[in-house]
Amino acid sequence: MFVIICYDITDDGRLNKARKVLRKYLNWVQYSVFEGNISYGNLEKCLAEVSEVIDKREDSLYVYMTDFEKSIRKKVIGKDKNPSDNFI
Amino acid sequence: MFVIICYDITDDGRLNKARKVLRKYLNWVQYSVFEGNISYGNLEKCLAEVSEVIDKREDSLYVYMTDFEKSIRKKVIGKDKNPSDNFI
Repeated sequence: MFVIICYDITDDGRLNKARKVLRKYLNWVQYSVFEGNISYGNLEKCLAEVSEVIDKREDSLYVYMTDFEKSIRKKVIGKDKNPSDNFI
Repeated sequence: MFVIICYDITDDGRLNKARKVLRKYLNWVQYSVFEGNISYGNLEKCLAEVSEVIDKREDSLYVYMTDFEKSIRKKVIGKDKNPSDNFI
């Protein structure tokens, strides 16, 4: 499964903890975006860990998932901050 | 076509201009994320307009596109900042 995770975390402490978790599972491609291939099990583990470190009343995480990575095309305009090699 | 646009724009002036453009075409769902259905033609127009107002050496826009909206599932953890009704 391919996922794109975008987050809006208002506190730097929580933000760093969330990134630390996400980096174990996915590629950090932009200031508030991670992407990559991940199994269902690992995504559940990842989201459970991130849920522990964010404040759900304040912060938000959008998780876009698809089983068909080939169905997604990606275009970068401007700086490709962190070209993730496992992508199109 | 369904798109998710994530951006990392370092200057507030450029950021506001880019958002102004994006809001004409898509739904603003998170601090630096827009999403929605859009035609190829309108996406080209949108990206051309945004390219005019950002600094491509500094800023970055990631455009994820799919023709198969149904192939994407979305999960929100925490605050759903701007529930976009045209989505799953």
